[in-house]
This record gives sequence, C-alpha cells and structure tokens, in this order.
Amino acid sequence: MINKETQLCISLAGKPGNFGTAFHNYLYQKLGLNYIYKALTTADIEHAVKGVRALGIRGCAVSMPFKESCMPFLDEIAASAKAIESVNTIVNENGYLKAYNTDYIAISKLIQQYQLEQQDAVIVQGSGGMAKAVVAAFKHAGFQKVSVYARNGTTGQHLASLYGYRYINDLKDMRASILVNATPIGMCGKEENLLAFPECLVDQANTIFDVVALPAQTPLIQYAKQRNKQTISGAEVIVLQAVEQFELYTHQRPNEALIAEAAEFARSVR
Amino acid sequence: MINKETQLCISLAGKPGNFGTAFHNYLYQKLGLNYIYKALTTADIEHAVKGVRALGIRGCAVSMPFKESCMPFLDEIAASAKAIESVNTIVNENGYLKAYNTDYIAISKLIQQYQLEQQDAVIVQGSGGMAKAVVAAFKHAGFQKVSVYARNGTTGQHLASLYGYRYINDLKDMRASILVNATPIGMCGKEENLLAFPECLVDQANTIFDVVALPAQTPLIQYAKQRNKQTISGAEVIVLQAVEQFELYTHQRPNEALIAEAAEFARSVR
Repeated sequence: MINKETQLCISLAGKPGNFGTAFHNYLYQKLGLNYIYKALTTADIEHAVKGVRALGIRGCAVSMPFKESCMPFLDEIAASAKAIESVNTIVNENGYLKAYNTDYIAISKLIQQYQLEQQDAVIVQGSGGMAKAVVAAFKHAGFQKVSVYARNGTTGQHLASLYGYRYINDLKDMRASILVNATPIGMCGKEENLLAFPECLVDQANTIFDVVALPAQTPLIQYAKQRNKQTISGAEVIVLQAVEQFELYTHQRPNEALIAEAAEFARSVR
Repeated sequence: MINKETQLCISLAGKPGNFGTAFHNYLYQKLGLNYIYKALTTADIEHAVKGVRALGIRGCAVSMPFKESCMPFLDEIAASAKAIESVNTIVNENGYLKAYNTDYIAISKLIQQYQLEQQDAVIVQGSGGMAKAVVAAFKHAGFQKVSVYARNGTTGQHLASLYGYRYINDLKDMRASILVNATPIGMCGKEENLLAFPECLVDQANTIFDVVALPAQTPLIQYAKQRNKQTISGAEVIVLQAVEQFELYTHQRPNEALIAEAAEFARSVR
C-alpha cells in the first residue's frame, strides 16, 4: 500500500511502454520494497529532469529521444554514461542527480557472459544512443577489429572515429564473426519484417547480437537461429539493464530466478 | 496494476501525511480507476510545479507552506483560489495548470449543510491560508457580522479589511453565535492541549467550527460537545475538500457511503 514513505521511480520515453513498469513493480512487490514505478513522457525534458529533483523522485529511466538532451540538467555523469554521451538512468540522492548508462553495463556483461572473443571481427550497425553503448562496450572489452556501419554517414563516422574504429557505408564483401544490430530494423512497427543484415553476411558469422527487444524474435534472430548461430537478443539487454537500474534505485539485487520471473511477467503484460 | 496509462496524482506539503494518499488510493481502487496517488514534499516549489506540468502529473494537492508560493507558476487560478490568494489543488490539463482552493469550496458547503444563519455574528480566529478560505466562504455566503481575531496583527488586519470585516486583537467582552478556529491551536504537536477559544465564549455560542483535522476531537470540539453545542470539525473539511479534489482529477464523484468508508480507512492508516 502506498504511503508517505513510498519511493517513486519513473521512466521518461517518447513512447512509454509497459515493460519497465511491470518489471520493477513486480520485483518491488516480491521483495517487499516500498517503491512504485510509473512510465511517463514529456514535451519538456529540462523541466521534467528538474521536476525529478524537486519532487524527490528516487529514480528515472531515460529512453529515446531524451538520452542526450537530459544531460545538461544533471549534477554528475558516471563513467558508463560519460564515455558514450548518453544517459539512460538517473538516480536522485537527496536532490543530487547522478546519471548512468545501464545499457552499456548490460552489453558489457553480455559480451563477457557469451565469451565473445577479443580477436574476432565485429560489425555494429547503427549510430544512435544504443549503438554508442554497443561500440563503447566492445572497445572497453578490448576488441580491435570493429566496423561501424550506419545509414547516417555523419553520426556513423563520428561514432567510429570516437573509438578509433572504421566507418563503413557498404556491407558488400564484408566479413565478420560478430554482427550487432543497434538500429530499429526488425522492431515492431514499420521495419518489423526487415532483416537487419543480408543473409550471406549472417551465414558466415558466428554470433548474432540484436539489441531490438520488441519483439525478441526479430527476423534477424529468427534467421540466425535457423542457421544455428549463437544469438544474443535485445530481450536480454532490456532485462539486464533494468536489473542494473533496479539495483541503483533500491541497493538490492534480485536473484536470477526472480529476475527471470519478473522478466516473463513484464513481457506478458505488454 | 500500474501501467503506462495510469494517471499519477501527488500532493506537496512541508510535512506529507498519509490521509490524502490513503483516501484517494482507496477510492481509485473501489471505483476501478487507473490512478495512483503519492504524497511528496519539495525544497523547490518552482521546479516542483514545473515538474508537475512537464511530467504530465494529473493532479497535485498543495498544503502548507506552498499554498501561496506555488501561484506564480500556474497558468490559471480559478475563482475559488483567486479570491483568497491561496491554492490547494492543481489540475493539469495537457500541460495547462489550473488551480483551485477546495478548502474554500468545502467550507462553503459546510456553512450551507449546517444551515448557519447569515445574520449571526461570527468570530474567525487565524490569518493564514485556511483562515482566508474560512473568511471568504462566510463573506460569499452573505454573512456581515464577522470579526477576525489573530495573533498576527498585520495579516489579521489585512485579511479583515480584504472582506470589509473588522479585526479584533482581544476576545474579552466579545460575543458571537458562531466561533471558528482556523489556527493550529488544538492540533497534534505543541498546541494539542490548548483550547482555541475561552470557555466563556464557547458557552455563549451556538456553533463551534474547528478546522483542525488531526485530531478531529480537539479540546475545543470536546468542550463544545460537552456543552451540547453544534460542532463542525476539521475532519469534515479535510474529507470534503479531498472529495472535491477527487472529482477535479477524475471527473467522478463517489457516493456518500463510499466517501465515509474511504475517510474511515484513511483515518485508520495514519
């Protein structure tokens, strides 16, 4: 039951979803934490962030298109977010707003967990906030042969050069063991039927990593599975980054079984 | 269950209580409304109010000490709040903040409901936000013989002259049929054992109206009941003003039985 001690956490997204709300509230309840979580949107990111501080809102997840525009209004940017100039999590410590990027943290953990090999070649497609997190995570994991492929040449080149990687504007004749899609291709909506990489490129790769979480079974993941490739899906990223947020807000980390339960629940209420 | 459509209402008070949170959430649940209510405080009223707008928070109750200081940041002040330069309710209509004073509305309704007589003499004690609401309500109900008694001569005189009433700085030799306490005298805390008016004044009056809600049975109300006076308590004000807020936020008005149930519940969780 909500009372005056209840801590409020929110999210800010252009198009709020139900995943975070369901995931966090499920865990609050199971762990007996006096917290509530509510997804919101805004047309005024400056006053939304200042409102988080002024209203004592404990935590705030930040999604597109606010991951960069929120940054001028924060008090401190942690290394995870500073490196990629992109914030997805704000923690309010008595009016002091510290920001993180738990996508970066989640992707770093997945690179470890799936034992991706430093010497392997990687192609990352995309140049937005999520692509930044992906490229930075590979860089900090010691990968050297990374190519950034993006439809937007300006942001693509900028991202590649930021990490000393090369930018490519064509996938023809490319080869890479690891393919990462960090664009909305394959996401529910107008690009949901598209394959993010050409079939021939998938055929020659070993690992296919798609950050699209809705649906988890994108055309790219489906095709890669048919070809018996190792796959890492956006569903894993979204859960892992949410767990990191959960820990930042509550200082508690649920066990793996409970995380899986909450993730399953959150996917079911969509 | 909270989801992306859930409407969020809050309150802002120097010292948040549980009454509003319990009262509103109880009614949301009983009426199947997709709303949640959470009491908050702030050290920055400007950005708290701007945050209400930017975050799309549907409604915001305002208590001491923010009832006047919130006013510069609103888009429109309804007559109920403008007359007394004091806001206790903000409604957010797609980013447009309209403010009301439901204390004023509640007191006006109680004056009617208890059939207080226009020609009777009234003494109102106090000169803060609640006293303003009381004096304005008596004025607009047609009462002419109202005296404002206040420890603070400056605000007391200002309030009295605003409505063409007289200010008194001494209760000696005074007589009035209706006595209203609009100060914290008798409230839980350092003044909880004090009687807001001298016994002899209560003895000669017919109606004793105490706006202190915590406790409902103040020394003044207790003494008046012993003397078989008509009494109106702050518990009635707090419920009635909360019902007005509820209707402003949700466009629904619960029936009397449900209101009584919610009020009893809210008092029990204190």
